[in-house]
Amino acid sequence: MSAFRFELLGQVKTEHGILRRGRYHTPHGTFETPCFAPVGTYASLKGLTPEQVKATGAELILANSYHLHVRPGAERIERLGGLHRFMGWDGPILTDSGGYQVFSLGGKVKIDDAGVTFQSVIDGSTHRCTPESVLTFQKQLGPDIAMVLDHCPAGDAPPDYQRAAHERTLHWARMARDLHDGWGGSSRGQAVFAICQGGVDADLRRASATALAEMDFDGYAIGGLSVGETKQQMAVALDACVDALPEGKIRYMMGVGMPEDLLAATAQGVDMFDCVVPTRHGRNHSAFGAGGTTLKMRNAQYADDPGPLVEGCGCYTCSKYSRAYLRHLAVADEMLAGILLSIHNIHFLQDLMRSIRARAEGAA
Amino acid sequence: MSAFRFELLGQVKTEHGILRRGRYHTPHGTFETPCFAPVGTYASLKGLTPEQVKATGAELILANSYHLHVRPGAERIERLGGLHRFMGWDGPILTDSGGYQVFSLGGKVKIDDAGVTFQSVIDGSTHRCTPESVLTFQKQLGPDIAMVLDHCPAGDAPPDYQRAAHERTLHWARMARDLHDGWGGSSRGQAVFAICQGGVDADLRRASATALAEMDFDGYAIGGLSVGETKQQMAVALDACVDALPEGKIRYMMGVGMPEDLLAATAQGVDMFDCVVPTRHGRNHSAFGAGGTTLKMRNAQYADDPGPLVEGCGCYTCSKYSRAYLRHLAVADEMLAGILLSIHNIHFLQDLMRSIRARAEGAA
Repeated sequence: MSAFRFELLGQVKTEHGILRRGRYHTPHGTFETPCFAPVGTYASLKGLTPEQVKATGAELILANSYHLHVRPGAERIERLGGLHRFMGWDGPILTDSGGYQVFSLGGKVKIDDAGVTFQSVIDGSTHRCTPESVLTFQKQLGPDIAMVLDHCPAGDAPPDYQRAAHERTLHWARMARDLHDGWGGSSRGQAVFAICQGGVDADLRRASATALAEMDFDGYAIGGLSVGETKQQMAVALDACVDALPEGKIRYMMGVGMPEDLLAATAQGVDMFDCVVPTRHGRNHSAFGAGGTTLKMRNAQYADDPGPLVEGCGCYTCSKYSRAYLRHLAVADEMLAGILLSIHNIHFLQDLMRSIRARAEGAA
Repeated sequence: MSAFRFELLGQVKTEHGILRRGRYHTPHGTFETPCFAPVGTYASLKGLTPEQVKATGAELILANSYHLHVRPGAERIERLGGLHRFMGWDGPILTDSGGYQVFSLGGKVKIDDAGVTFQSVIDGSTHRCTPESVLTFQKQLGPDIAMVLDHCPAGDAPPDYQRAAHERTLHWARMARDLHDGWGGSSRGQAVFAICQGGVDADLRRASATALAEMDFDGYAIGGLSVGETKQQMAVALDACVDALPEGKIRYMMGVGMPEDLLAATAQGVDMFDCVVPTRHGRNHSAFGAGGTTLKMRNAQYADDPGPLVEGCGCYTCSKYSRAYLRHLAVADEMLAGILLSIHNIHFLQDLMRSIRARAEGAA
């Protein structure tokens, strides 16, 4: 039997859909859902040790297989014992295929039906990703969950382009499914998730999710949202995906990490999320505050403030340091500022997900 | 009775003097000597939490009172409960007076017998340090050990200038001693150490140490060495200081942190050291290696190396990560590279000091 399994533990009807409480099993342990996964693109969450990440309550982390393929190389990481051992994280890991990065980096990207050719942002060298190559990199890296290659067009791409991208995404997903099967499916120790595309067109989204569901993947991601569309457009597109996805499989919304978006999407039935926002905001000296506020820690108003970032927050940063100290570190551009604020921001989202899970259990 | 006390626990004759084993008592606990103290200029060891610093074995840390006076302000830190609480370090802290920084930063520095006037490196504003003002800042900050203001001339300053700086340093030390006495001496919860100057002139060094010893400070620093002179010149100057200093007081060599210098100076009777070198080298991707070597972690030779930085090293970094991972982090310019290498480098110097202490006990 595969070590991968999504347990649906509870469902609660909301104004906009069904909030789900679940648990996902992997060979490196379980994670409770709805969950938020912080991102360590290059096999390192910027400035944080795995122990510091774990202390925030995060159970699943992300890395990016394309970035790691370019540097230091997927084969190299395989020779060194795989990604878990390489980066010292013994819990579940998901790697993105890099499709989003390839398309969003702009510049010289040539897409054909068999894959995408592009220039490295690091050294300008030419690379090619195909549905096979990205799965091969991820097989070498050895995360618990691998993502298929998708074609994620810009949010403002014209309808014809969106449709072509959607069809190409399905074509590539089929190739990935066949490859995954050929390797023995998830019983080889790695699950593969497909990615639903279709922009803000509900019909395309429904068609994408329906077709992918028929291919019977281990899980389903919803890509190409939170890229500039309105909240209303996002909700409609998300609803169309969720409607067509099987109840028994996990649903993953990619690249979403702002608290209001996590609240909205979980209420529509999404089970997992990832985003660089808590660490990027931390390095930019921003902290999630109470009641949807953001604290800009370089502001003079915190210079003499002896209180924690968020009253009652149990994170390492709030347990130990004053706003005045964090403001000092930010103004002095000390590395520790970004680290302590990243810890708080990740912990803050973990607290949010805990409260959402409690609500899904009918406890709140 | 004062909470400050230097216990001389053992002495071993060496080729170049007497190696001492001791223990220094402060209101925030003791530290074993010979010891090496890492530096957190702005009340933060770059990228490390106090827990990470403590785990290296470091018992004493440094901060810089001049830098903290400029930003965020010594009065502000006093209002916030003092430096220990501000930065979350509950062990012994020493603050430097900033004299070295003022003189070494170059630019517009005007010295007179009552103090020094200079421009801030941060915003160009004009500041003045006097023997009274630097002790006042340190009284506000509240470290366990405060340093007097000294005049530290460049290593290549002419003899007349060295002599004038030496005499001014004594004059300022006397003013500091009187102020410290007026405040109640070390029983107020803070020790004050004087700083011996005199360049590489053994007579000046002896005169400086003798005069300071007569003023009966809580401890004695040796400044103005490791600034470009030869190892032989350093040894002669150091010997002249040590000879004239009282056996019962702690001896502190400032700004020295390279392993060979620590070995040489402890064999001449020095009890404590500080330096930015382990953290600065760490951020520059250099690691202390076995047998006096330095590992440049961006080098391609480590790309596939599954071993630790130093075989048998018990530090967090060596216990958990391969050279290959550290090389990857360094090449990718990940924040974690500097952090993990700083942890190793500080731990490495703590191990070195432990082995020196064992030798001073006749155990090695």
